[in-house]
Amino acid sequence: MANLNGTTSDLRTTFLQVYSVLKSELLNDLAFEWSPDSRQWVERMLDYNVPGGKLNRGLSVIDSYEQLKEGKELTKDEVFLASALGWCIEWLQAYFLVLDDIMDGSHTRRSQPCWFRLPKVGMIAVNDGVLLRNHIPRILKKHFREKPYYVDLLDLFNEVEFQTASGQMIDLITTLEGEKDLSKYSLSLHRRIVQYKTAYYSFYLPVACALLMAGENLDNYVDVKNVLIDMGIYFQVQDDYLDCFGEPEKIGKIGTDIEDFKCSWLVVKALEKCNEEQKQHLLEHYGKANPEDVEKVKRLYNDLDLQGVFKEFESKSYEKLNTSIEAHPNKAVQAVLKSFLGKIYKRLK
Amino acid sequence: MANLNGTTSDLRTTFLQVYSVLKSELLNDLAFEWSPDSRQWVERMLDYNVPGGKLNRGLSVIDSYEQLKEGKELTKDEVFLASALGWCIEWLQAYFLVLDDIMDGSHTRRSQPCWFRLPKVGMIAVNDGVLLRNHIPRILKKHFREKPYYVDLLDLFNEVEFQTASGQMIDLITTLEGEKDLSKYSLSLHRRIVQYKTAYYSFYLPVACALLMAGENLDNYVDVKNVLIDMGIYFQVQDDYLDCFGEPEKIGKIGTDIEDFKCSWLVVKALEKCNEEQKQHLLEHYGKANPEDVEKVKRLYNDLDLQGVFKEFESKSYEKLNTSIEAHPNKAVQAVLKSFLGKIYKRLK
Repeated sequence: MANLNGTTSDLRTTFLQVYSVLKSELLNDLAFEWSPDSRQWVERMLDYNVPGGKLNRGLSVIDSYEQLKEGKELTKDEVFLASALGWCIEWLQAYFLVLDDIMDGSHTRRSQPCWFRLPKVGMIAVNDGVLLRNHIPRILKKHFREKPYYVDLLDLFNEVEFQTASGQMIDLITTLEGEKDLSKYSLSLHRRIVQYKTAYYSFYLPVACALLMAGENLDNYVDVKNVLIDMGIYFQVQDDYLDCFGEPEKIGKIGTDIEDFKCSWLVVKALEKCNEEQKQHLLEHYGKANPEDVEKVKRLYNDLDLQGVFKEFESKSYEKLNTSIEAHPNKAVQAVLKSFLGKIYKRLK
Repeated sequence: MANLNGTTSDLRTTFLQVYSVLKSELLNDLAFEWSPDSRQWVERMLDYNVPGGKLNRGLSVIDSYEQLKEGKELTKDEVFLASALGWCIEWLQAYFLVLDDIMDGSHTRRSQPCWFRLPKVGMIAVNDGVLLRNHIPRILKKHFREKPYYVDLLDLFNEVEFQTASGQMIDLITTLEGEKDLSKYSLSLHRRIVQYKTAYYSFYLPVACALLMAGENLDNYVDVKNVLIDMGIYFQVQDDYLDCFGEPEKIGKIGTDIEDFKCSWLVVKALEKCNEEQKQHLLEHYGKANPEDVEKVKRLYNDLDLQGVFKEFESKSYEKLNTSIEAHPNKAVQAVLKSFLGKIYKRLK
């Protein structure tokens, strides 16, 4: 564990070193009697599913904590602990993704086959998802049991996991069970899905972890939570927009929200703006795999000037978020939030 | 919530009343923004999966707590809290069963179709399992957040869930991936699967909950844990025995361990006792659906006198467990353990 300090130029390298430490601790956890087979299984499963993403959520715990410390250099121990919390978020994400892919019948994830698609894995992936989830309290217990904020960390992860699973539920019962009923799709439903399924764990959780590490009481940061949730919603609207209007080379995938009958911000806005005739058109062509249907939906989006509607939403959101941030009394907290917003404003990927 | 007291003749009725209270609290949890659809989904899912079992694990929290109190009548509040912890164990079990049935491709559970087999459910059941799991910390937070033992409860449930998922992993990677390789089956593998997958949550967890409620430190009860784990193993050996030699009318199902190539205590004992010729016979016929193959395996079990071997194991286990229990310095703890043992000794179902 050499070189674990805040001044290292490559934060990502440090972060990945912490992954190796955590993995090796988990593979030697005394709460379980390991065999070579089971140890090998878990190691493969972790390497396949945990560290392969962009790591933005995890890294932003360290970022945020640094900013809360207002430039004071972090000790090695602080960097390690912030990284461990960052990894807990990455583990949480891996758990959700492994299970989501099974539920959605997906094929690829992070440019490789989904874990459950591997011939030797199959439905064992369900239990692997459960194991990933269970690693989080193991990591927390090992490194935070004696901290005064330990119980708050447990409560935080529990609450956010509950909210994410609840958001996933709304998404599943509206998309899958919903026999293609566009009439349910509204801005408020879209907001609810996004807030619970994505915003809590992707935006609020990293900052909340940093706040707890800095000794803060989360009850005093409800306003910060609200700003982060709004940022998460703005982020997902961008995602929905880029799925249709982004450049596939930049976003790294070809969007299929229209084909998949997703409750996307675009379709919700289209429903809001269209006349009766256009609505019939949308009902007829939305959620079909045929490229001609997709093309017709896209043409309708153009007719309704959804690109313009999005541009306006984007600048209004930015303005509103900035105003909320500047209303916050604490400069360090402002810096945390501004840095988050800076990373996502007008992103093209 | 009338009539919630320790003297009621029907503990089961009281226990079920607490279920209704907990359910209604969960369906109004302020950490989530409910819609009529989502509330209805969760209610149906809970009623289908949580209260339909024998409720032994849950009820034994109340039992154990009463015995720890040495006959002092419990207050309404104590009965409610012990019941709530009991229900947390039932919720945990429901979570594991919903997911296990998906992984095993099962058809029925508690004489009804498995949850994921319902046409409107399907793979949404994976997320429902996750929701069930997430209800546990919600219940704990609502009713135990201010108790001095709150953090220990969270740690306990986390540790036991981790152990259960780890036991399930060993079971899955030996049974499913194992291309029918009997050479891996040994008493030590059997013990490991049973200890982790079943004994911790079914035997240790209820007593540990009662001990925490009674203000005890679990670190001082490692010997109690070990006795309960041994009892759990004894219980599962009975289960394995009854699967083959029990009366289907009594055990409520027709055993299929032989067909399913299970790492049952019987096959492990058979492998231990058989000669080379008998071993070849076993390798040829174990794990096949054909009734003639099954019959041949059963005949071999008879030739090896596994019924006698089991009888001896049963009386030896009982003796050993009793000796361990009587060695315990605390009479109330002895009573808890003896009551557990009494419930399972020489059971026929």
